[in-house]
Amino acid sequence: MKEARYFYVPNATEDNELPTDEAIHAIRVLRLKIGDDIFLIDGKGSFYEAVVTLANSKHCLYKITQTLVQNKTWKGHIHLAIAPTKDISRIEWLVEKATEIGFDEISFLNCQFSERKNLRIDRIERIVISAMKQSRKAWKPIVNNMLSFEDFMQKEVTGQKFICHCYNEIEKTDFFSNINNSGLFEDITVLIGPEGDFSINEVHQALQQQYKSTTLGNSRLRTETAGLAAVLMANLANRI
Amino acid sequence: MKEARYFYVPNATEDNELPTDEAIHAIRVLRLKIGDDIFLIDGKGSFYEAVVTLANSKHCLYKITQTLVQNKTWKGHIHLAIAPTKDISRIEWLVEKATEIGFDEISFLNCQFSERKNLRIDRIERIVISAMKQSRKAWKPIVNNMLSFEDFMQKEVTGQKFICHCYNEIEKTDFFSNINNSGLFEDITVLIGPEGDFSINEVHQALQQQYKSTTLGNSRLRTETAGLAAVLMANLANRI
Repeated sequence: MKEARYFYVPNATEDNELPTDEAIHAIRVLRLKIGDDIFLIDGKGSFYEAVVTLANSKHCLYKITQTLVQNKTWKGHIHLAIAPTKDISRIEWLVEKATEIGFDEISFLNCQFSERKNLRIDRIERIVISAMKQSRKAWKPIVNNMLSFEDFMQKEVTGQKFICHCYNEIEKTDFFSNINNSGLFEDITVLIGPEGDFSINEVHQALQQQYKSTTLGNSRLRTETAGLAAVLMANLANRI
Repeated sequence: MKEARYFYVPNATEDNELPTDEAIHAIRVLRLKIGDDIFLIDGKGSFYEAVVTLANSKHCLYKITQTLVQNKTWKGHIHLAIAPTKDISRIEWLVEKATEIGFDEISFLNCQFSERKNLRIDRIERIVISAMKQSRKAWKPIVNNMLSFEDFMQKEVTGQKFICHCYNEIEKTDFFSNINNSGLFEDITVLIGPEGDFSINEVHQALQQQYKSTTLGNSRLRTETAGLAAVLMANLANRI
């Protein structure tokens, strides 16, 4: 079935109607009619085969004909917290690629050296949904609103916690070796700073909150490349 | 030193003059003058500190004051051969990111199901050079012209050879497990197909040439995401 016929319906089994955005796309762009087959994704691990039962200018009703459960291909909860780049297209690219590869949650950090202090979460959400459909994933990563670094530090985080930074004067261990050798498939939260890195004060705050000081390797990576490398390493270490 | 003051000079020690493109940038954009400090990269493992000795409208001469050798941070030769995507910006993105992460050579394949049959190699070369400067790498990946899949199959390739594809009827092993368990840090060549995958005939040709049939994991990745994932895995497996 063509990608265009996949629809994101968070409460697919409770509702029997496509959400407005998806309905408009189904009816006005794809010109779907009663009896056409569609595919629903609930973002929580299930696909549904369904058939259109009503299609008018504003509404598209459906009836589910089959449920297909998809297991996640990695264990634990992979959470990337990253400072958005000045050029937002770089972060949008990261979000698309990380969704394809597979992760669970993204947070955006407003840091001392951040060049971008705001972000359109609705655009990020749309990119995540589109990449989820395109890569045929039934699991939608959670997209969080931007928080100050300090507020993020107050959040309760389970599993292993890491901050990646470039300060040579603070001892660092290797991120991938840390997560790959544990054999525990724990939840992983990893922090990536802005173009100008975290401030040294921010790194110390994270260390106080039991984040481990880590590096992704010897290459000098842009913010968005570091974010994707971290997600790929976490997925690789935790994959089933 | 600012990124803008890094110049790519393949024969830095033999010449004493910036190549034309770099000279124009140095003089017209950066307005460098006699006595200004610059940084040269030869793409073969060396940086050079230098000082401008002449700067007119067409020429920028320099004198090297110091040589800094950079060791590669991975072993073996990592070679990605990939079919360019219809939307060329996706391949350009891949080339930038793969250069940041670190690899040695890229080839472009014209496959049976390729949607793009041509490519501006000069643009790719410029992106590689820019990413090399930005990520402060002294090693420039080799960029090869596009070849037909059949012609690529005739090329002599050292080390381990892999083809990634999506055919379930052909047995596949895991790419990362293959390269990460060897402990040999061998040369790695990995083939990634176009949007519509390799043809089954192409996969069989590769198997006959001793390419191993592999998968990058259970995620359904776009061509350029698969290319980057393969480079990152190879770099990770072979890193020093």
